Amino acid sequence: MQFIKVFFKSQANNRDFKKQLSNVLGFMPGDIALYKTALSHRSVREGADENNERLEFLGDAVLSSIVAHYLFKKYPYKGEGFLTEMRSKMVNRQKLNDIALKMGLKKITFYNKYDNALKISQIFGNTLEALIGAVYLDKGYIGTLKWVEKYIIMPHMFMDDLEDVEINIKNRLYGWANKNGKALEFETLDEKFENGRRLFTIGATVDGELIAEAKGYNKKDASQVAAQLAVAKLGL
Amino acid sequence: MQFIKVFFKSQANNRDFKKQLSNVLGFMPGDIALYKTALSHRSVREGADENNERLEFLGDAVLSSIVAHYLFKKYPYKGEGFLTEMRSKMVNRQKLNDIALKMGLKKITFYNKYDNALKISQIFGNTLEALIGAVYLDKGYIGTLKWVEKYIIMPHMFMDDLEDVEINIKNRLYGWANKNGKALEFETLDEKFENGRRLFTIGATVDGELIAEAKGYNKKDASQVAAQLAVAKLGL
Repeated sequence: MQFIKVFFKSQANNRDFKKQLSNVLGFMPGDIALYKTALSHRSVREGADENNERLEFLGDAVLSSIVAHYLFKKYPYKGEGFLTEMRSKMVNRQKLNDIALKMGLKKITFYNKYDNALKISQIFGNTLEALIGAVYLDKGYIGTLKWVEKYIIMPHMFMDDLEDVEINIKNRLYGWANKNGKALEFETLDEKFENGRRLFTIGATVDGELIAEAKGYNKKDASQVAAQLAVAKLGL
Repeated sequence: MQFIKVFFKSQANNRDFKKQLSNVLGFMPGDIALYKTALSHRSVREGADENNERLEFLGDAVLSSIVAHYLFKKYPYKGEGFLTEMRSKMVNRQKLNDIALKMGLKKITFYNKYDNALKISQIFGNTLEALIGAVYLDKGYIGTLKWVEKYIIMPHMFMDDLEDVEINIKNRLYGWANKNGKALEFETLDEKFENGRRLFTIGATVDGELIAEAKGYNKKDASQVAAQLAVAKLGL
């Protein structure tokens, strides 16, 4: 009896999940197990073949290619520098996390809700990339391209606005430093292993004085946050 | 008469070019103008819509996606870290440049042959990425995926060997520094505009002493070269 109850409960859960998922996707998903993997954070599934990190790797690359093609078509006379900058505005971690939250991914992502570190990190943006990886394996490249354009780019990325956004806060800080004859440096203050990953502490210094520091699993993210804190501290 | 001579000469050139190109590609190309753009370095064509930099931007992203998919299939139980590292071994600038030369791209690339700086730089790897962008626009994603697997991955990327390669020389340097209690830093020594791009000078310092420095249009490349020079200088 116990088994049967669990079985029916899990069948009902599966139906609910499939319905919620199809609401988010806008189409009926094929391989449900694939999407469950895409929505499973490593905090609840340890195995590399069980959580969404492999699909995130795939989806990140597929998204980058789709966005490159989109920009290539949309701006036929713009150079590579402009296209690269626009892409980084469209698919940066913060932006993807915001979009994922708007799409309702938080409700259908499996993660450890008691882990406070996860609450402030941007796992939903990564989950969105993993979901794109799943859509790619399920529907192919062209299907994914159409889906990304319709459900991600069109409703969430306003190109005219993005053209004006100054995304790279480090550039802003360098601009200020150049203008004011200050020497701005980003330095690796510390580097250690934590949870099997390298964790970096990056400091922003102005004329040798440490203005702000931030931690991150890669230097780029950490220095970006350090730059944000420095801009705030310097009142720029 | 003059016009007719030039016309026939250019027709003959076009036929030669198409033949050489189809030898490199292994298929008969559709839109010849597209491939000419892909093979035109900015040293001979200034306009953003005339040289191969836009196609390089597109092809780089498409290649990255294709390689991600290839690795995802080939290593079903490996984690994201391994996949990322393998991809960077497969598609790093040096590797792509070597492959481009083996494929015979040098003969069909249009570039300023009198510019000595170009001789030592890796423009053929970039040209290969642009060519992939052209194949993608000409034959679609699946056609490009099959072509990349058959003509680039299979003949030029030996996965078993690549698994053993230590590509990231910065990691090697960090490993040495950690083991010997040295403080290793990569610092931006200089940053300026040159030919409309930012040019960085990155220095590698050990315990505050400058060991090596290198220039590059992005920090990653420059610090990689600085690391190589530092490794050589330290005799590691």
